[in-house]
Amino acid sequence: MIEPRVLKGFRDSLPEYEIFKQQIIGSLTESFESFGFVPIDTPVLEYRDVLLGKGGGETDKQVYTFSDHGSRDVAMRFDLTVPFARFMAAHVNELPLPFKRYHINKVWRGENTQKGRYREFYQCDFDIVGIDHVSADFEILFMMYSALKYIGIPAFTIRIAHRGILNTFLDQLGAGGASAEILRIVDKLQKIGETEVLVQLQEYLTSRQAEQILSFINAEGSNKSILDTLSSLCGGKTEDIIRLETLLQYADEAGFSDSVEIDPSITRGLDYYTGTVFETFLNDLPNIGSICSGGRYNELASLYTKEHLPGVGSSIGLDRLLAALDELGLYSRRASTVDILIFCMDDSHMGYYQKTASQLREAGLHAEVYLTKRKMQQQFSYAEKRMIPLGLMIGDTEYQAGTYTIRDLRTRMQHEVSSMHELIQTSSSLLEGEHD
Amino acid sequence: MIEPRVLKGFRDSLPEYEIFKQQIIGSLTESFESFGFVPIDTPVLEYRDVLLGKGGGETDKQVYTFSDHGSRDVAMRFDLTVPFARFMAAHVNELPLPFKRYHINKVWRGENTQKGRYREFYQCDFDIVGIDHVSADFEILFMMYSALKYIGIPAFTIRIAHRGILNTFLDQLGAGGASAEILRIVDKLQKIGETEVLVQLQEYLTSRQAEQILSFINAEGSNKSILDTLSSLCGGKTEDIIRLETLLQYADEAGFSDSVEIDPSITRGLDYYTGTVFETFLNDLPNIGSICSGGRYNELASLYTKEHLPGVGSSIGLDRLLAALDELGLYSRRASTVDILIFCMDDSHMGYYQKTASQLREAGLHAEVYLTKRKMQQQFSYAEKRMIPLGLMIGDTEYQAGTYTIRDLRTRMQHEVSSMHELIQTSSSLLEGEHD
Repeated sequence: MIEPRVLKGFRDSLPEYEIFKQQIIGSLTESFESFGFVPIDTPVLEYRDVLLGKGGGETDKQVYTFSDHGSRDVAMRFDLTVPFARFMAAHVNELPLPFKRYHINKVWRGENTQKGRYREFYQCDFDIVGIDHVSADFEILFMMYSALKYIGIPAFTIRIAHRGILNTFLDQLGAGGASAEILRIVDKLQKIGETEVLVQLQEYLTSRQAEQILSFINAEGSNKSILDTLSSLCGGKTEDIIRLETLLQYADEAGFSDSVEIDPSITRGLDYYTGTVFETFLNDLPNIGSICSGGRYNELASLYTKEHLPGVGSSIGLDRLLAALDELGLYSRRASTVDILIFCMDDSHMGYYQKTASQLREAGLHAEVYLTKRKMQQQFSYAEKRMIPLGLMIGDTEYQAGTYTIRDLRTRMQHEVSSMHELIQTSSSLLEGEHD
Repeated sequence: MIEPRVLKGFRDSLPEYEIFKQQIIGSLTESFESFGFVPIDTPVLEYRDVLLGKGGGETDKQVYTFSDHGSRDVAMRFDLTVPFARFMAAHVNELPLPFKRYHINKVWRGENTQKGRYREFYQCDFDIVGIDHVSADFEILFMMYSALKYIGIPAFTIRIAHRGILNTFLDQLGAGGASAEILRIVDKLQKIGETEVLVQLQEYLTSRQAEQILSFINAEGSNKSILDTLSSLCGGKTEDIIRLETLLQYADEAGFSDSVEIDPSITRGLDYYTGTVFETFLNDLPNIGSICSGGRYNELASLYTKEHLPGVGSSIGLDRLLAALDELGLYSRRASTVDILIFCMDDSHMGYYQKTASQLREAGLHAEVYLTKRKMQQQFSYAEKRMIPLGLMIGDTEYQAGTYTIRDLRTRMQHEVSSMHELIQTSSSLLEGEHD
């Protein structure tokens, strides 16, 4: 006998969780497609050098790599960005630009599991590639907003900034040479606090420069007043500041500027980003961190092609989002999606039960048949464990008369109906509001 | 620069294929859930010994195995049956029995790619575990039938047989001792032909026995007459024959017995099966082989638990099904799911375009915005490549008047409408029948 164990950092998804997860993925998908985004998928296994380049960084150590049957060095994908860059380089001539894609799937990293992290987890990425325009930056923000609203999150704030504004400011300050190091330190502000940021900045800057940087990223007030502050710190209204201003104007026209805040402290540590950057925080759960982040990059696929592919994109941390939805109590878990269980009162009626179920299914209901005659108490208990709201009883009397007895399993009230038409109508009206 | 290549036997899924695949997976999912089946998922990586047992067979050599960061021997799943057995052993106490689950996801095998096979492919499994009853066998058949009808396959035949009937017959014949070898040979009938089957059988049997086996598996005629033949060959109407008879009776009551044929040549090579077995062939494409096969097994999880878990299940070869749907021309490929493209006539109206798109989305339409002003010819060409049926033009005149010009991109006819309400109505009526 072998113990049915799973690897550390991996987990089974039981029906309740899987139904919930699929429901959220379905809503995100519908939301993305309503904007005209299309799905793609890439292989889980790729050549190691394609995924890691000449690499050797911190992430690389976590990547699952091995030698396959043909002695090829291969790796399991550790994010959806690198495969997307490779995908665009390979297929750019087959795809109409701008190309708007989403990709929701699993990735793997052999991370330290002590932090409550999993080694197999989901990413949900969406990008617009082939255009560097404020309208594309805006569309990503608007889609983030719409998708989060669509899955029912009541209140959240998208915080935006622009890498270019910070760079202009650093140049003004005479600190442009150390911008990569400064970005890395400033990105840790929330984690390590102001004092420590000041200390670390002074490794590269004078204390006066360090303080000015802090006052830049701490600029507060209305969006308009922050933009004014940034303009004066940068010696005028630069193109990048106008881009943020235009984003806000579009958000105003589309009706969601209340959910967008300019926040110069958003820098996104990665070198990768070159323009607009953003993070999203739930107003009711600020401490879980950003659930949706991204930004603009100038070169998506430069590792694989000379083709110039600017883009803007964002990524939802799906596992974190699911945990947040749980904590907010926005979804009630369901053990099944069954609307009505047809009880088995007599094994000899099985064909009739299935035929009845089939008619209910054609009317759009999820109808399950209990597969063998057991005590009613046992069948009720099964229905309860599966959280099924309605039951249907067809005993000899009903079978002969062509009638049905519907039992509302939540209230234990019974309703006799005398035709399939009536059965469908009564069931549907009893189910109203059940799955909202 | 690194060449953006993918591994042999792996492939990218471009939007057209991914939309098609997701549509079919969505239909299968809806079909399964309407029967009360629930989804599960399991890790892609598992302990090697959990997936392979003490193994060493032909499949094992194809499995991707390696040593992970913690020097654990791990393997990528090569089917969805073994992980399901492990899953049931681990969670049987948390799940109401009978447990009806489906699982649609990727598996990996380092197979020879010369046969047109992929090393990364989908499986789609559905099973009922915890009950040995004809009603469960029937439900799997009925769900196969309903799911294939639901995705629009016009004509197919489910061929069924029963392992027990063959075993009884072999015992009668005095050939029961070699039943495993006989099964293996008989399973190759379609591939190697009758003469070769006879030759191979004679390694274990007399030529008379071999001929009698062939006449058993070649029994022809109506379902009723085959059952009669089997009864006489088995010395009476055994319990197993009654099970097939009952299956046919239920199929008759549920209205699909025309699609079910008793076929004693269906044996399914695997030792695994113990009762009813079945395969499904498309009437219009008989040569592609079975697209949905399975059967009853007595012990699902005996490798991991002493718990007795009988079950019945089936598996759709998703990649083969997709190829068949292509060949039958049942689905027209779509490069996007967009209903209407809002052209960009003036960059300064971008906020208004997005707001308009948003109102169309709220009415259930997929509305994309073209992100920057380009020549109309270029925008039309983009719409065409993305196979978008409708366009919306909002120039200065329309913007000021609050009106809209809808362009049917298929016919080049234009329709002027004067309100959002009218825009939604006209668009919806122009789209009628578009995505059926």
